[in-house]
Amino acid sequence: MQKNFFEDCQIGEKTLSPGRTITETDVVFFAAFTGDWLPIHTNAEYAKQTPFGERIAHGMLVLTVGSALLFRLGDAALLPKATIAPYEVERVRFVAPAKIGDTIHTEAEIVRMTELDAAHGLVAIRGEIKNQRAELLAVFTLKGLAGRRPASPAGSAGGERAS
Amino acid sequence: MQKNFFEDCQIGEKTLSPGRTITETDVVFFAAFTGDWLPIHTNAEYAKQTPFGERIAHGMLVLTVGSALLFRLGDAALLPKATIAPYEVERVRFVAPAKIGDTIHTEAEIVRMTELDAAHGLVAIRGEIKNQRAELLAVFTLKGLAGRRPASPAGSAGGERAS
Amino acid sequence: MQKNFFEDCQIGEKTLSPGRTITETDVVFFAAFTGDWLPIHTNAEYAKQTPFGERIAHGMLVLTVGSALLFRLGDAALLPKATIAPYEVERVRFVAPAKIGDTIHTEAEIVRMTELDAAHGLVAIRGEIKNQRAELLAVFTLKGLAGRRPASPAGSAGGERAS
Amino acid sequence: MQKNFFEDCQIGEKTLSPGRTITETDVVFFAAFTGDWLPIHTNAEYAKQTPFGERIAHGMLVLTVGSALLFRLGDAALLPKATIAPYEVERVRFVAPAKIGDTIHTEAEIVRMTELDAAHGLVAIRGEIKNQRAELLAVFTLKGLAGRRPASPAGSAGGERAS
Amino acid sequence: MQKNFFEDCQIGEKTLSPGRTITETDVVFFAAFTGDWLPIHTNAEYAKQTPFGERIAHGMLVLTVGSALLFRLGDAALLPKATIAPYEVERVRFVAPAKIGDTIHTEAEIVRMTELDAAHGLVAIRGEIKNQRAELLAVFTLKGLAGRRPASPAGSAGGERAS
Amino acid sequence: MQKNFFEDCQIGEKTLSPGRTITETDVVFFAAFTGDWLPIHTNAEYAKQTPFGERIAHGMLVLTVGSALLFRLGDAALLPKATIAPYEVERVRFVAPAKIGDTIHTEAEIVRMTELDAAHGLVAIRGEIKNQRAELLAVFTLKGLAGRRPASPAGSAGGERAS
Repeated sequence: MQKNFFEDCQIGEKTLSPGRTITETDVVFFAAFTGDWLPIHTNAEYAKQTPFGERIAHGMLVLTVGSALLFRLGDAALLPKATIAPYEVERVRFVAPAKIGDTIHTEAEIVRMTELDAAHGLVAIRGEIKNQRAELLAVFTLKGLAGRRPASPAGSAGGERAS
Repeated sequence: MQKNFFEDCQIGEKTLSPGRTITETDVVFFAAFTGDWLPIHTNAEYAKQTPFGERIAHGMLVLTVGSALLFRLGDAALLPKATIAPYEVERVRFVAPAKIGDTIHTEAEIVRMTELDAAHGLVAIRGEIKNQRAELLAVFTLKGLAGRRPASPAGSAGGERAS
Repeated sequence: MQKNFFEDCQIGEKTLSPGRTITETDVVFFAAFTGDWLPIHTNAEYAKQTPFGERIAHGMLVLTVGSALLFRLGDAALLPKATIAPYEVERVRFVAPAKIGDTIHTEAEIVRMTELDAAHGLVAIRGEIKNQRAELLAVFTLKGLAGRRPASPAGSAGGERAS
Repeated sequence: MQKNFFEDCQIGEKTLSPGRTITETDVVFFAAFTGDWLPIHTNAEYAKQTPFGERIAHGMLVLTVGSALLFRLGDAALLPKATIAPYEVERVRFVAPAKIGDTIHTEAEIVRMTELDAAHGLVAIRGEIKNQRAELLAVFTLKGLAGRRPASPAGSAGGERAS
Repeated sequence: MQKNFFEDCQIGEKTLSPGRTITETDVVFFAAFTGDWLPIHTNAEYAKQTPFGERIAHGMLVLTVGSALLFRLGDAALLPKATIAPYEVERVRFVAPAKIGDTIHTEAEIVRMTELDAAHGLVAIRGEIKNQRAELLAVFTLKGLAGRRPASPAGSAGGERAS
Repeated sequence: MQKNFFEDCQIGEKTLSPGRTITETDVVFFAAFTGDWLPIHTNAEYAKQTPFGERIAHGMLVLTVGSALLFRLGDAALLPKATIAPYEVERVRFVAPAKIGDTIHTEAEIVRMTELDAAHGLVAIRGEIKNQRAELLAVFTLKGLAGRRPASPAGSAGGERAS
């Protein structure tokens, strides 16, 4: 079902994102984009000597990609179309690293909903980013600021148009 | 002073990152990399009709770039060289958006330190990402997992080698 | 409605893609990626002296981005989930150029459907790529190779899983 | 021989592009640029279970790169210097996929020429994109809009200048 | 004329590269790729207060792009097809900066030729990188290691094959 | 020690850059960015038949990345904070190629210092770019234009601020 407004969401709703393989390209990209060239991510010789034995993806890469996978869900997304902005990331735990070649996906659930005012509400989503062996890599809670259904009868349009 | 270990850090230490102008390129990059093409970031016509009046950078872009700016500080960085990994992002509040052309920097401070075991400690940094008008865009608290100074007399080398 | 198989499609169905602003970054990206540095796309001085008066996007960029916008539609996409591959682009007419800063979107319609065999069918989509002033930039017809609904009662799974 | 105008082309002329290895980077790039993250291109675990057994390049990537290889031919190009724009892609058949690591090249031939008016003509090129084992991946016919040789004696400049 | 071997080159030969507009994208790209985020290139606020008044391109960006423009010349290139590798950059003077939006091109000339042995020779090219106002930005001398024409009668093939 | 001005440098000072693994992504990036698609860098089939047996990185890529690694040194950099611009690359010798997967670093030394005028001096650095087996890949000498310490007592601020 297409969710347009805060009112269309429900605590306990779950979704499963598509998967994405984390490639060497992604790690080089992310190092370049952020300027975070720590040797564990970008120096294969150094990484060999660490407990990981090879380069690992940046924690923030996993968080960024893993949380964005939820945006590829179209009508299966947990946040309604009238989501205005991310509002707050409550907490992110980095549990295990993603290695180059791992395929990650995100399992998410609506865990809390808060009415802010007549026009806005917060929808809190708990996401678990896992690899292809279902091992947990990171957990995060993200609150989205969502528009509420207008009281007026003209309220059915919802969401963005032709965007 | 060069900080090698957990023990070299101190609550209350502050630092100021270099600045970076958030360009249209960065926003397109980030949309492409993450797959988050929400129209507020990538559709100029749509963005004109929003309260912002123009495209804004992704909140996660600001967080990613803003926190990574701290990695460009070399010896002025708050986290010691023996930092092994980010451990946890405690909380991120998105206060105001960055617009294309804004120049952001990050002001950071060590706000908490916790000994985990004989070999590791957590250093919690509170970062404020601001624009060129000193307006606050985002606040985050990040805990880094740092190595502790070895008790043995051979402990002076510290940090990574030739990486 | 979620379309899983060839049988879920219907001639005459229409859809409207999200929009995307074609930026200078996109044009530089595309020139770099393809190696097509023709001066009309990458030399501002040269472009000033052409009838366009400025750099324009590559025709193939418009086609590539414009047709891919249809993949961002989720359940509103015209092609069913069990689409295996693009099969054929029947024809592409480049009608007018996109300029840097133009926002394009694609209007598409299922114009033909052909059963190939018991397991596959072709779904032909006609797409019109337009700019923010509703001017037509390019028209294309694309045939997708789609899976047919299995006859067996186990046929309800459909599409890819956890991908 | 350097071809400046429509009149310098001839039906039956052939050319052979340089080769280019399609890398994982190219596939990630293209997915990111277009937003087409279909799992057959970007999810290694999913791709393992398909008949291909591994990720394959996007059909449009092969077309885009394969047709652009013809632009790297300099004076050996089939289209004359006074080519103004691509005009039409008549038809593209996707015959077989390119896998990561395949090296593609394009064999092209002028198959038709049409005078449009005193100043313009169309040159139709049929291109075959093949891999390193000479297997056909895609066939396309592309018409370029080419300038005709000016009748006046001042006509010798031709093509773009210093661009 | 197509130049295959060292023997096809001549001191005093000149060529003119195509032009390329240096965009903000190029500067961000180059900063990201190299990790050189010096504020004069990437911090618009800082750059305003310098004598340049705005961000400028990296000197190495100008050198890299300016020298590579010579590779887009096809048969008009100064170095023969049988060039094996760059051998030495003799000297690079950075005379003036390129600003974002400037269009650069390179004027080059063969200034010296040296036989190394029966199979190899060095061809030294002096290049001047200029902007759209013909102002000199950088001068470099680059020596290419070129193959010599084989003495045997089978020597006519030359250059790379199907590459 | 933090070096602010020309006067803080000394002939004979040495430094060692971090390492960076040259990936396939870097080579594709660099080919795309520069337009230098020579087959030795981008055509795996061609490269197999050369003496190298595989694709190698562009010489200019090695120079660009290798010299930029010195910018990641923070306070351990040889050039002082008040460095205004690169001034001249005296000479670059390409000794051996970097292959995909090699990890390079740069060893640098101040080899010459020249006072230009009351406000500026040149600091010449000789850099050796080596791979993980300590094999020399390239040698370069780079002169940076550095600011001199102001005579006035207000001179202590130095370098860029908050950039």
